[in-house]
Amino acid sequence: MNIDVLQKRIRLPKLREKVTSAEAAAEHVKDGMTVGMSGFTLAGCVKSVPHAIAKKAATRPLKISLLTGASLGNDVDSALTNAGVLARRSPFQTDRTLRNAINRGEIMYVDNHLSETGEQLRRQQVKPVDVAIIEAVSITESGEVIPTASVGNNEIFAAQANKVIIEVNLAYSLEMEGAHDIYCASHFPNASPIGVMSPRDRIGSIGIPVPPEKIVAIVITDEMDTPSQNLPPDAETAQIAGHLIDFFKNEIRHGRLTESLRPLQSGIGTIANAVMSGLQTGPFSHLTMYSEVLQDSTFELIDAGMMDFASATAITLSDQKSREVFGNFGRYKDHVVIRPQRISNHPEVIQRLGIITINTALEADIYGHVNSTHVMGTHMMNGIGGSGDFTHNAHTAVFVTKSVAKNGVISSIVPMVPHVDHTEHDVDILVTEVGLADLRGLAPRERAQTIINNCVEGEYKDMLKEYVREANLRGGQTPHVLEKALSWHQRLHETGSMKETAKAG
Amino acid sequence: MNIDVLQKRIRLPKLREKVTSAEAAAEHVKDGMTVGMSGFTLAGCVKSVPHAIAKKAATRPLKISLLTGASLGNDVDSALTNAGVLARRSPFQTDRTLRNAINRGEIMYVDNHLSETGEQLRRQQVKPVDVAIIEAVSITESGEVIPTASVGNNEIFAAQANKVIIEVNLAYSLEMEGAHDIYCASHFPNASPIGVMSPRDRIGSIGIPVPPEKIVAIVITDEMDTPSQNLPPDAETAQIAGHLIDFFKNEIRHGRLTESLRPLQSGIGTIANAVMSGLQTGPFSHLTMYSEVLQDSTFELIDAGMMDFASATAITLSDQKSREVFGNFGRYKDHVVIRPQRISNHPEVIQRLGIITINTALEADIYGHVNSTHVMGTHMMNGIGGSGDFTHNAHTAVFVTKSVAKNGVISSIVPMVPHVDHTEHDVDILVTEVGLADLRGLAPRERAQTIINNCVEGEYKDMLKEYVREANLRGGQTPHVLEKALSWHQRLHETGSMKETAKAG
Ligand SMILES: CC(C)(COP(=O)(O)OP(=O)(O)OC[C@H]1O[C@@H](n2cnc3c(N)ncnc32)[C@H](O)[C@@H]1OP(=O)(O)O)[C@@H](O)C(=O)NCCC(=O)NCCS
Ligand SMILES: CC(C)(COP(=O)(O)OP(=O)(O)OC[C@H]1O[C@@H](n2cnc3c(N)ncnc32)[C@H](O)[C@@H]1OP(=O)(O)O)[C@@H](O)C(=O)NCCC(=O)NCCS
Repeated sequence: MNIDVLQKRIRLPKLREKVTSAEAAAEHVKDGMTVGMSGFTLAGCVKSVPHAIAKKAATRPLKISLLTGASLGNDVDSALTNAGVLARRSPFQTDRTLRNAINRGEIMYVDNHLSETGEQLRRQQVKPVDVAIIEAVSITESGEVIPTASVGNNEIFAAQANKVIIEVNLAYSLEMEGAHDIYCASHFPNASPIGVMSPRDRIGSIGIPVPPEKIVAIVITDEMDTPSQNLPPDAETAQIAGHLIDFFKNEIRHGRLTESLRPLQSGIGTIANAVMSGLQTGPFSHLTMYSEVLQDSTFELIDAGMMDFASATAITLSDQKSREVFGNFGRYKDHVVIRPQRISNHPEVIQRLGIITINTALEADIYGHVNSTHVMGTHMMNGIGGSGDFTHNAHTAVFVTKSVAKNGVISSIVPMVPHVDHTEHDVDILVTEVGLADLRGLAPRERAQTIINNCVEGEYKDMLKEYVREANLRGGQTPHVLEKALSWHQRLHETGSMKETAKAG
Repeated sequence: MNIDVLQKRIRLPKLREKVTSAEAAAEHVKDGMTVGMSGFTLAGCVKSVPHAIAKKAATRPLKISLLTGASLGNDVDSALTNAGVLARRSPFQTDRTLRNAINRGEIMYVDNHLSETGEQLRRQQVKPVDVAIIEAVSITESGEVIPTASVGNNEIFAAQANKVIIEVNLAYSLEMEGAHDIYCASHFPNASPIGVMSPRDRIGSIGIPVPPEKIVAIVITDEMDTPSQNLPPDAETAQIAGHLIDFFKNEIRHGRLTESLRPLQSGIGTIANAVMSGLQTGPFSHLTMYSEVLQDSTFELIDAGMMDFASATAITLSDQKSREVFGNFGRYKDHVVIRPQRISNHPEVIQRLGIITINTALEADIYGHVNSTHVMGTHMMNGIGGSGDFTHNAHTAVFVTKSVAKNGVISSIVPMVPHVDHTEHDVDILVTEVGLADLRGLAPRERAQTIINNCVEGEYKDMLKEYVREANLRGGQTPHVLEKALSWHQRLHETGSMKETAKAG
């Protein structure tokens, strides 16, 4: 490699001696270790050493406990799963191969609130990280490690590990230096306030301070993050966005919001991205985000002049958007900041800023309890991610979902969700393509009426009305017919559809 | 009444003209209004005007929406329920008459996180308070209203209402002046940090600033709060406390805690009080509390020299303890502070202080999801109270429960809870008299093993093992047999017992 490039990317001279192969770096990872890797919803994932670890496992016994920021890209989770390397995994994933192994009970998956993984390490409530493997655009003269498209838990992994491996990724421009804001929340018992008073506030340094003697290997890579595979907005996601825009307009009319709304958080996935994108059609200006991930929609809003600033811990884009944004990062640098996930998801900051949170539900029940994670109540989809951090502490907590899934054989509104990630206490607004249910200040029986009337249609609406009628006869604050509460899921399991007509047919 | 007493209790002269009867004061409360009343877990409840309102309803149509701090004493909730006055009630209650009306669907009960009721009012997300009725020990020269044994939501009720009614209660000593710390969290968008860095920090004023022209009536009362009816510690609560003390000792041994632990929060009720009381037998010193309610156990620990300081929003005591503490309040004044519930329960402060939270579960399931509120998943017991505020943001979140209820016909550990208030993401430690399950860092299948092995015994243990065996055959991150998940509750409903032997018999 060009020595000039190396000098620019690794500016502390003695560290250049640490440049080595992925295979050599992987030798530092031993059986039984806990490994902390960079990577948050595909972004900033280490791309080379993990595959060397997987290869190494073919010849030697090698099981590790893997912690990350959130989900990884670049086939890392599937390669490690296929190689049988993962004994334990935390706190989030979106990989089909890994998910299947988790659901077979082969990998112990600890699905954490993303704000808490680092705290549990700091408090020594879980096993400490032995080795940290972190992606960087560069290492500065003073030895600060500058992350790439995400920060995640990197600062705590690096602080806790005895050995740190850096992957310097040439595919990301040095223009990214200055995009990050690395702050290590002070420890108990000397805790002090976290100084973020608005999404654009900077409170830390541009890189992660890592003592050079801890850096045992540096590997050079040149590969972009896996692009996100969100589907484009469709008629239904446009309808969901439309209902939400109408709601915001009404809040503005009543003086409860202004045209810049509140700082916005938006979850991962197709629906949340499409809804954010749909905000372009609304009468908003000077929008801001305080979120964990920025998707394509954020940059569309910035380009449209509607969004002033966005804070997150990761930037995860489609192939096309990724070229535009990372190919010309200087253009966006004054509009974004990338923080540790402890800060992007911190309850203190979320409470203070008064955030409107928009997350996607797998399913919700008539009382507004939301299942974000467990298909049929048992099988892990992705994980709770930051949806709990944001929903618990929101100014207004919105959940979006299409009213049906899988061509209509599944209703996303059910009598009782078989797994609860968010309780009725925390869910303010529920939106499907059918309509919007404003649940604020309503008691459970009222919530049921509102959700069924506004968010469901057709056969499922009739079925839910009948369920409520029967449940109300039994009484209670939150009426249910216990023996029928999960019957829709049982029917789906047995007949392939939640519909009663399917059963008869 | 003695004019001298009046001058001491109402030190702003022009306000003395407002002294009137409860009946006259009640005239300010009109049909359809939203009323904000003081009172938090029996403490600081207004005692006279509510009964006048109930009486008034006998002759005229009068339905109100009633907001409080938390539960009321002095028969207020039952009198208002019996008089048919309550259309809506929020955010917490513990009254049998009211509970039954709620469960019949007659009163719309909105069971809120206690930190949020005031915020929703401030954000105008729910109907505003028209009239505030607040108990006070006195009104100062400058018109500050000094609360009695609780603050609750009084500061926001008083700020929002057009009319404020004060009950000056002579039964509480003027020595209480200075015991409170009234701070109104600044509004969006100019939010700033809440300055509580340790439980003893004072950040506000000693009373609630109320513009004198808003005070439309002052009623004089002379009656103590209803005493708490907690049962004394028994063999099982002593065992629960013992397991928890052993856990704390082990944490100290490993350097994760010191002998002063972390600031403690403890929930309401017999079990939590008994467990706190049990801490006296442990090797602790310089304990502190940052809680919502102080019960007898707090003052036992202070008297024993083991606790330095306790912060809360209410003091709720047994008859005997109440005489000791309120009869000699000067003795405790340097050891306690009473704050608004927005501050006692604020996620920012709870996160910063790193609190160990101890709350009681009605029941928990094998994966550690907790039901705190709904008997059989449908019938409201009390409400979630502050248990969510504290559990979400805890350093270590503990739930305690006896392993069985109602002489053993109910197992408090079940395959699936039919109502979730706290998810597995938030529950760290589960304790029954059988033992303690340390769930930190465990995946769901591991959580199930740990809970069943450590917290359950006898027939229920065998039944849960069999359930897990069958569920694991179906696979998943969180295995369940959907058609049997709620069968224990169904069996209880049908046969009067969760036991299979009962069904056969
Ligand atoms: C809930 C979540 C899976 C939805 O993802 P999405 O991409 O927006 O939504 P989709 O409608 O495309 O659904 C994704 C899949 O779930 C399936 N699905 C949707 N609703 C379902 C239901 N009720 N039952 C079963 N499957 C369902 C879809 O059919 C689709 O399946 P496929 O991948 O086999 O095509 C995703 O948002 C998530 O993991 N959320 C939890 C984490 C989170 O909220 N983080 C927020 C902060 S990052
Ligand atoms: C859960 C809670 C009701 C327990 O109260 P407690 O007084 O400590 O516990 P007890 O064991 O005496 O139980 C209270 C009642 O619930 C019943 N009970 C307990 N477990 C039960 C179960 N699994 N199913 C049905 N009933 C149950 C008891 O039999 C008892 O009934 P009774 O009043 O008719 O005698 C109470 O702690 C609560 O309301 N918690 C929610 C609010 C909260 O946690 N606040 C914390 C911050 S203040």
